[in-house]
Amino acid sequence: MRTTPETLLIIGGVAGGASAAARARRHSETAHIILLERGPDVSFANCGLPYHIGGEIPDRAELALQTPESLRTLLNLDVRTLTEATAIDRANKQVRVRSLTDNSGSVISYDKLILAPGASPLRPPLPGIESPQVLTLRNLQDMDRIKAAAAAVDHVAIIGAGFIGLEMAEQLHHIGKQVSVIELQPQVLPQLDAEMVRPLENSLREKGVELILGDGIDGFEASSNGISAKLKSGRNLATGLVILSIGVRPESGLAKDAGLALGPRGHIVVNGHQVTSDPDIYAVGDVCETEDPILGKRTAIPLGGPANRQGRTAADHIFLGDKALHYPGSIGTAIVRVFDHAAGIAGYSETRLKMEGVPYQTVTVNGSSHAGYFPGAETITLKLLWSPEDGRVLGAQASGKDGVDKRLDVIATALRARMTIEDLVHLELSYAPPFGSAKDVVNIAGFAACNIRDGLLVPVPDLKSAGAQIIDVRPAAAAAKLPVPGAKNIPLGELRGRLDEIDRSQPVFTVCQMGKTSYFAARILANHGFDARSILGGVHHQVWSRSILIADLHFPPVSSRPSVLGDVR
Amino acid sequence: MRTTPETLLIIGGVAGGASAAARARRHSETAHIILLERGPDVSFANCGLPYHIGGEIPDRAELALQTPESLRTLLNLDVRTLTEATAIDRANKQVRVRSLTDNSGSVISYDKLILAPGASPLRPPLPGIESPQVLTLRNLQDMDRIKAAAAAVDHVAIIGAGFIGLEMAEQLHHIGKQVSVIELQPQVLPQLDAEMVRPLENSLREKGVELILGDGIDGFEASSNGISAKLKSGRNLATGLVILSIGVRPESGLAKDAGLALGPRGHIVVNGHQVTSDPDIYAVGDVCETEDPILGKRTAIPLGGPANRQGRTAADHIFLGDKALHYPGSIGTAIVRVFDHAAGIAGYSETRLKMEGVPYQTVTVNGSSHAGYFPGAETITLKLLWSPEDGRVLGAQASGKDGVDKRLDVIATALRARMTIEDLVHLELSYAPPFGSAKDVVNIAGFAACNIRDGLLVPVPDLKSAGAQIIDVRPAAAAAKLPVPGAKNIPLGELRGRLDEIDRSQPVFTVCQMGKTSYFAARILANHGFDARSILGGVHHQVWSRSILIADLHFPPVSSRPSVLGDVR
Repeated sequence: MRTTPETLLIIGGVAGGASAAARARRHSETAHIILLERGPDVSFANCGLPYHIGGEIPDRAELALQTPESLRTLLNLDVRTLTEATAIDRANKQVRVRSLTDNSGSVISYDKLILAPGASPLRPPLPGIESPQVLTLRNLQDMDRIKAAAAAVDHVAIIGAGFIGLEMAEQLHHIGKQVSVIELQPQVLPQLDAEMVRPLENSLREKGVELILGDGIDGFEASSNGISAKLKSGRNLATGLVILSIGVRPESGLAKDAGLALGPRGHIVVNGHQVTSDPDIYAVGDVCETEDPILGKRTAIPLGGPANRQGRTAADHIFLGDKALHYPGSIGTAIVRVFDHAAGIAGYSETRLKMEGVPYQTVTVNGSSHAGYFPGAETITLKLLWSPEDGRVLGAQASGKDGVDKRLDVIATALRARMTIEDLVHLELSYAPPFGSAKDVVNIAGFAACNIRDGLLVPVPDLKSAGAQIIDVRPAAAAAKLPVPGAKNIPLGELRGRLDEIDRSQPVFTVCQMGKTSYFAARILANHGFDARSILGGVHHQVWSRSILIADLHFPPVSSRPSVLGDVR
Repeated sequence: MRTTPETLLIIGGVAGGASAAARARRHSETAHIILLERGPDVSFANCGLPYHIGGEIPDRAELALQTPESLRTLLNLDVRTLTEATAIDRANKQVRVRSLTDNSGSVISYDKLILAPGASPLRPPLPGIESPQVLTLRNLQDMDRIKAAAAAVDHVAIIGAGFIGLEMAEQLHHIGKQVSVIELQPQVLPQLDAEMVRPLENSLREKGVELILGDGIDGFEASSNGISAKLKSGRNLATGLVILSIGVRPESGLAKDAGLALGPRGHIVVNGHQVTSDPDIYAVGDVCETEDPILGKRTAIPLGGPANRQGRTAADHIFLGDKALHYPGSIGTAIVRVFDHAAGIAGYSETRLKMEGVPYQTVTVNGSSHAGYFPGAETITLKLLWSPEDGRVLGAQASGKDGVDKRLDVIATALRARMTIEDLVHLELSYAPPFGSAKDVVNIAGFAACNIRDGLLVPVPDLKSAGAQIIDVRPAAAAAKLPVPGAKNIPLGELRGRLDEIDRSQPVFTVCQMGKTSYFAARILANHGFDARSILGGVHHQVWSRSILIADLHFPPVSSRPSVLGDVR
């Protein structure tokens, strides 16, 4: 048994810090546990902030999961809010602090120190950025400011279309604001691959949210009745309020000044027990690096789930020593709801794998949220990425109206277990008509991936990548309604009898509605000696993901879209 | 490459057989694939049958996933419906068949044979069981019969409260029938542990469905205006229609007559490629045994998902040989919806582990379907079972109104990966307030299990199992509203100051509302030297699961239940 530390000092009282304090108290009634927090609140629901602004969580008190008083009462913590740590004296194991109420300074000694200061929203040094009309969202006070400011304006500009930016756009639309979202990348939610977020973009646009993609900010300028955002494109966007949500920066200044090892982007380096380069100092949450268990690289995932479990890990190591569990790294599971659509990711995106130079294979399949014959089934699109070397899953993205979280959670579990595409084939997921299918979309992705590996399916990612000879195997009526330019229509049922209409001297590309019967057709053709390849996801996916071919497809306006497309937007 | 069989004969054209046929055709355009089916339909949605009877799937055609004609056209299958196989001549590789239309006999030669005859509903030889008012549900014709018969009666008796029995009860209630469910076991859904299905029982009773538990059937007798079911208890239950759903029996007569190896309960024995004791004969679906990958025992899981994937496995082995994937066994994931409640299982129940004499540990926790501060969160109760030897998960059951399927699928994936309770701690599941929590109920189950393993949590399964000294740590108002008999109320926040009110000479049992703060209290007490144990799931679980203590709790009637119980029924 290790010696119980007499004084455990924790800097930061929200997700990671509060979790560490609670877990520490379960281990010891005698330890003096001090929780320092610069703000007035501890342990609040930071992921819920946008939803109070939008009124979906009407009661602000719901967001205060604990109060300083409740932590004192329930956990016997020495909670010191409005108190900032200003320096760590590692040699003497002391932290210098400053009261934000009376500016008085003092020194706290520690046996063990946990750093959980989090990360702060980026505010690049642009002209005009210090305007009171340019706000960021991190805590309850930020939330109150945005809520009050939004109430007084008609239009809000959101800079950055990541998870928080999109949640804010949705919630501000809920309370009747006109919203513009500006994003430097040519897509929203750059954590996901571009084609997977098209339905989110469509949802936003259909609700009247303006998306300004592939454009950045040069600065802000006060105007007579608001503020003007100067875009890199030259446009001046007049608005009443700007919300910056372009990412976060770890609050590692204190650690840096104390000489703790930092990673390339300024995150505190920790080992599997969350110990920093000083054996008496731990770091948890957004401020620290962690391992990416998929490729074994160092990464930083500023999310609440990892922060909570890292806090617990640090407390366990302090009280249990090396028999405590290691934190196994973060795979970066994330999801966002935008109106009636959800999209999310677990593990690596194709974009990131390309950037890392990691070999991968990928397939995109469509499936049903539950049995297709049961009312209310919605299409789920699932993109799977795996290693061609050993079949190990590297990541997945899901997009749809229902059941997206469930499929991400299955893949997140598979990633943690280092499962392969073969393992996905035989996952035995719950099936009753209201809940699932005998072959879930995760199984289908496994089937398709194994088919690609075994050469049974030669995939083509989109129509654009297809060659000249395209065979549309949909029924004649569907093919006539939304024709694929340049394609010859041979319905699947007629294919075997019309093989002589297809040129054997060149590859043949099959296409259908959802990417399933085109695979069947390609198998028929391949078994008859053709070089046959199937276009993934079908016309559905071409329309859904607004691939380059949309224009050629003469995509009809929203109001008159053919019913054959189902819920495609 | 193996020699492609010239003739592949498949007996049975629904889940397993149809999947095998479809997959076989993807491998070969030249094979002659014959699909024999005794009934008039192939590849129908057998899991959807109850929902057409109840009108939730209004269009009968939705249930015909394929027709003989569509299989001929799309897959070039030689489909022979209304044709029964009567004998297998293994020496000559021939099957004798009989037409059910003209009774003519003939012989079909095969190179490879796949047996997919399924399982038939049990009809024990009880007096009166041959009455036309005693029906079973297996195919579309059964469904039509039940639908027509139900239309003419006011009351239906369902014998057997398994998955199909409960689905039928719900659906018959939907169309205004009075329903009685008779079950030999003292609980519905005996696949799950008794306390986990109490909410289903409550839901059924609240809707007016009569549950007759712990009672069996001695026979049936025609009455003037219906039929009377004679119960073992002596009661005569007058009804208009009886539906038998007491289980299924594998249709392995043909295989038995042909001398194929059968298991102890009459299932065909197969290897990992679904090959029977005859290397040219395969068996898939409800008719065959499979491996249980959790304990390595032989099992039989009559469900659609396994049947589909076993069919695929057999076809792959026929065309790819030993490079085809093995079927890795079935873990028996299953779920049922009963009105607004869902319950399900993956892996072993506590009852089955006891029967098998396998050592286990268990914990039951309550969590939230998504962030508790976000509207619409519902309580999920999760029971986890694991091996005390290595921490490996052996099974789980979930019950609640929302998100039950998601947690089962995560556990099903964890079971397939042979994960431990430690692995559950660090699953990184998708979290945004509408979808999940920073600490999902699956994580919480992992936390609690590790705490038990590490001695941090000494669990007590229910109040009944507690000793004399019970401390109720709920707030005084909650404790006064629904007092725990014999318990002393010391709210958690006051506990540290009132330790001298607790007798150190005997164990102390802590209880709270949901089983969380009682754990916190037990940690405080243990760290102060008490022998402290926490009652799992709290008063919520005692009420919810109708433990023996309910009577002592003076459980109030439904209409006046205190709001502190939330959605407890």
